[in-house]
Amino acid sequence: MAASEHWTVKAARGKKILEDSIPRQWLLPNPPVVERLNVLDVPKESMPAEQYEITELSAGALVKRMAAGGLKAEVVTTAFLKRATIGQQLINFATEFMWEEALEQAKGLDRYFEEYGKIKGPLHGVPVSVKEMVSFKGRTHNAAVVEWVDHIAADDAHIVKILRDAGAVFHVRTNQPQTVMHLDSGNNITGLTVNPSNRNLSAGGSSGGEGASIGFKCAPIGVAADIGGSIRCPAAFNGVYGFKPSALRTTLIGMTAPKVGNDAITTALGPIASCIDDLELFLQVASDAKPWDYNAMMIPLPWVMKPLPENYTIAVMMDDGNVHPHPPMTRALNFAKEKLQKAGINIVGWEPYKWKEIGDLVHSLYFPDGAACEREVIEASGEPVLPLTEWSFSWAKELTLRELFAKALQRDKFRIEHQAVMNMRNVDFILCPSAPGTAPLAGDVHYWFYTSVWNLLDMPGAIFPSGLRVDQELDKVEVDYTPRNTDDAREYEKYAPERFVDAPVSLQLVGKRYHDEAVLAAARVVDDVLQDAHLGREPRIGEVRNQDGVPMKISGKL
Amino acid sequence: MAASEHWTVKAARGKKILEDSIPRQWLLPNPPVVERLNVLDVPKESMPAEQYEITELSAGALVKRMAAGGLKAEVVTTAFLKRATIGQQLINFATEFMWEEALEQAKGLDRYFEEYGKIKGPLHGVPVSVKEMVSFKGRTHNAAVVEWVDHIAADDAHIVKILRDAGAVFHVRTNQPQTVMHLDSGNNITGLTVNPSNRNLSAGGSSGGEGASIGFKCAPIGVAADIGGSIRCPAAFNGVYGFKPSALRTTLIGMTAPKVGNDAITTALGPIASCIDDLELFLQVASDAKPWDYNAMMIPLPWVMKPLPENYTIAVMMDDGNVHPHPPMTRALNFAKEKLQKAGINIVGWEPYKWKEIGDLVHSLYFPDGAACEREVIEASGEPVLPLTEWSFSWAKELTLRELFAKALQRDKFRIEHQAVMNMRNVDFILCPSAPGTAPLAGDVHYWFYTSVWNLLDMPGAIFPSGLRVDQELDKVEVDYTPRNTDDAREYEKYAPERFVDAPVSLQLVGKRYHDEAVLAAARVVDDVLQDAHLGREPRIGEVRNQDGVPMKISGKL
Repeated sequence: MAASEHWTVKAARGKKILEDSIPRQWLLPNPPVVERLNVLDVPKESMPAEQYEITELSAGALVKRMAAGGLKAEVVTTAFLKRATIGQQLINFATEFMWEEALEQAKGLDRYFEEYGKIKGPLHGVPVSVKEMVSFKGRTHNAAVVEWVDHIAADDAHIVKILRDAGAVFHVRTNQPQTVMHLDSGNNITGLTVNPSNRNLSAGGSSGGEGASIGFKCAPIGVAADIGGSIRCPAAFNGVYGFKPSALRTTLIGMTAPKVGNDAITTALGPIASCIDDLELFLQVASDAKPWDYNAMMIPLPWVMKPLPENYTIAVMMDDGNVHPHPPMTRALNFAKEKLQKAGINIVGWEPYKWKEIGDLVHSLYFPDGAACEREVIEASGEPVLPLTEWSFSWAKELTLRELFAKALQRDKFRIEHQAVMNMRNVDFILCPSAPGTAPLAGDVHYWFYTSVWNLLDMPGAIFPSGLRVDQELDKVEVDYTPRNTDDAREYEKYAPERFVDAPVSLQLVGKRYHDEAVLAAARVVDDVLQDAHLGREPRIGEVRNQDGVPMKISGKL
Repeated sequence: MAASEHWTVKAARGKKILEDSIPRQWLLPNPPVVERLNVLDVPKESMPAEQYEITELSAGALVKRMAAGGLKAEVVTTAFLKRATIGQQLINFATEFMWEEALEQAKGLDRYFEEYGKIKGPLHGVPVSVKEMVSFKGRTHNAAVVEWVDHIAADDAHIVKILRDAGAVFHVRTNQPQTVMHLDSGNNITGLTVNPSNRNLSAGGSSGGEGASIGFKCAPIGVAADIGGSIRCPAAFNGVYGFKPSALRTTLIGMTAPKVGNDAITTALGPIASCIDDLELFLQVASDAKPWDYNAMMIPLPWVMKPLPENYTIAVMMDDGNVHPHPPMTRALNFAKEKLQKAGINIVGWEPYKWKEIGDLVHSLYFPDGAACEREVIEASGEPVLPLTEWSFSWAKELTLRELFAKALQRDKFRIEHQAVMNMRNVDFILCPSAPGTAPLAGDVHYWFYTSVWNLLDMPGAIFPSGLRVDQELDKVEVDYTPRNTDDAREYEKYAPERFVDAPVSLQLVGKRYHDEAVLAAARVVDDVLQDAHLGREPRIGEVRNQDGVPMKISGKL
């Protein structure tokens, strides 16, 4: 089909939306040189201290201060807008700023607080960044495909309504890859988002704009979605926190992508944030609105945090048996294992179960039409197919309906079997790599299994930083290693510590389907243990603080 | 493909399983003549009074008596086996008896009770009949297709294990139609099941053997499954109680059918029983086992009965706008409406929402491969395609994957819209026909929408008797009626009161997706009101008894 205008014209229209929306008053007049790879300190160097300090706070802390009357929503929004503008200059994480509306919204919240003497809701005045594929009424809604640049959303996405009702302020929309199916975030409209820890590196994807947003603290919380790692991978690459819920526990109304209606594998909307407590805050708000009353597609399981059982077991998967993790990842896992054991938690090993088969199955379910939907919408504008789009399409094989049904059955079988194996092994959670290593070079993200296998199994997963970054001395290349297969060889060859200077090493904790709250609670325990270790505190044997700082019994052989 | 033996040889092997299994010692030496259509009184006439009385009891009452030590499981099982054997002689409802095993099981329960002084579980000693498509280890598992007669199940179905653990005794497996996709129950192996109220009439389907089993009281409870009406239609045609839960709230492991792996529309396993309390008993047991720990496909929503809200509204749908109900159905709806209003319950009208579109959609999702799976397994043996199989195949159109995806999206849209309409109209439950009329003539069941529309919407539904039967005087043909379309004309022409002598008229109550417990609670209220009306009791305004006979507040304008 001949496009009615050259794709670059359409793409430029998309880019212009971004450019016109940037609050130029807050741009750095002299941004750091491109050779400066780690830009995490730029806000501290360039923002007034008071403003900077605000942007270092968690959503929970911000709301607490606003509820106490000590901080105005407008001040908070202004601070984050400023940091986000700097972020945009340095890492290109946004697709569109909404700064004037955000300030209006913040002022409205301040008036509300003044009038009623209370906050509007649990997210009062919290700036929230949102992945572009989640709609805002009257704005472009394009899933990073050029053809859809002129698609204007008729309504706000359901989650946007829920968060806004809880007091959230929306100041910026964030970048994603072409067709939303890379674990990186480059497209032909707004380009490539890069990693603030090291601008040579990927910000992850598909919610890479969101991961970078939270990594640079352009917002304390962001809205993302995950069908193969798209929340977890950007959270991990940026050294922040992310949570992929079990599918249909969060509302999907108002999301767009080239492929919809494929029941075989379902995306899950979830948060990226700068601490576990903010993940919980988001998930609690997203559930307390009883979204299933409005969205009959959802499973009406209310989000209810409960204490962990007295005795639980975390299994550690050091290696998936297919692609060997890079040295920093192995070091981080060993570090966590040691500290958790010291803290008295039951730790065992985890032998992956039918890993390769499950991974291959999930990849075949992403594009059961041979990626026809995706190719069509790309061809409609004539935009080039990006290399990582071709990469994901390389898994695409057109299935007959019968083949699809057989694969859906196999999916159910794997879900049942995997849970049975966890039961048999008496394992509650699996601690594992978030990816083969840290963020790879931007544009160079190929291996999905460390996250996508859990999507096929629909197991909830949390990402948190190990607290470690790549160490030039400790994380030498394993020169004696012989790769097992072509995937392994490709990933092995990517590693050299000098390529990944300053890259954070993040870990993943997964648990049984629908045990989302338990996974988050266990991730909090692990995160506390790791933070204590880095702070040189003795592990608080037998107790870990909960969200309110109250010691919680943790399990163990104690 | 040429079959290796003539289909009749295979089919005869299936029939022989049934015939060899019948406990001949309990056959009536002189069964009633075939001209006697209503055989409901035969057990009373032919069984010893004490034995007969036992088979008249509900599961709950039986368990209470066995728990008190006044009744032995062996005695109960023997009584129901005898009644079931008579039932088989008269209405051909079974595919296989398991009488020796059942008696062994019952004796084991009696020994358990003797040893421990308590019952094994909430279904201790209750004979349960089970639809053939639900597996028993080591037995044929054929979904009523001749080709699969020699398929032997490797394991018991999950629900069988759960019910057995609760003390249930399995004495008979029940009949279903070829491919399990008629609302009638004829096949080329064990033939056609007929209705004990009038043997000219259909027992319903696809769980028709089960409906007839409960209708004749061959068991107090039965296990059935419903993807288009297969629990509700047989319950309705036999004048008993049935409940179709929201999908994946009950376990499906161990069920067989020619089409599996089709995510677009999911069957739901549920009970048929002789009272609401027994439906609840079944659903509570099926949930209390926490089947989701074993079956990761399930939604882990525990079954929790709660009081109905103070003020709820039942909307009455008199007519779906597509096929006009027969006079007995309209009379039953009016009767219920009047009695419910008298009892003080909020009653409004219900205008169907996009009914025809939803019905057409669900029918297109039953056979997205153009019924290829089904045709293949039928052709493999060479058995003839039965007329009602051809009828359901007439909706089959092979879809492309893209078309299937579009339809799945449309399904989600309808679910969301329909719930929004219920919210907007402030309606909690919809009381509606269970079918265009009573049981049609056997082999003559064509119109599915009164049940199948609710499957597309995944709304839970209960069936209960109106207490009315076809009345030759009151239920005259509406001679002035002009049919709206061919479906309507076909169904209109089926009706003449003299064809449906003694046929019970049953009603259906549906509610929002996943509000299963509320639907059952409201069905209990309606059933109580109707029973009171028939017993000539004043409606107990403002109170209705709960399961334990305790008055419950009911809503209304009072």
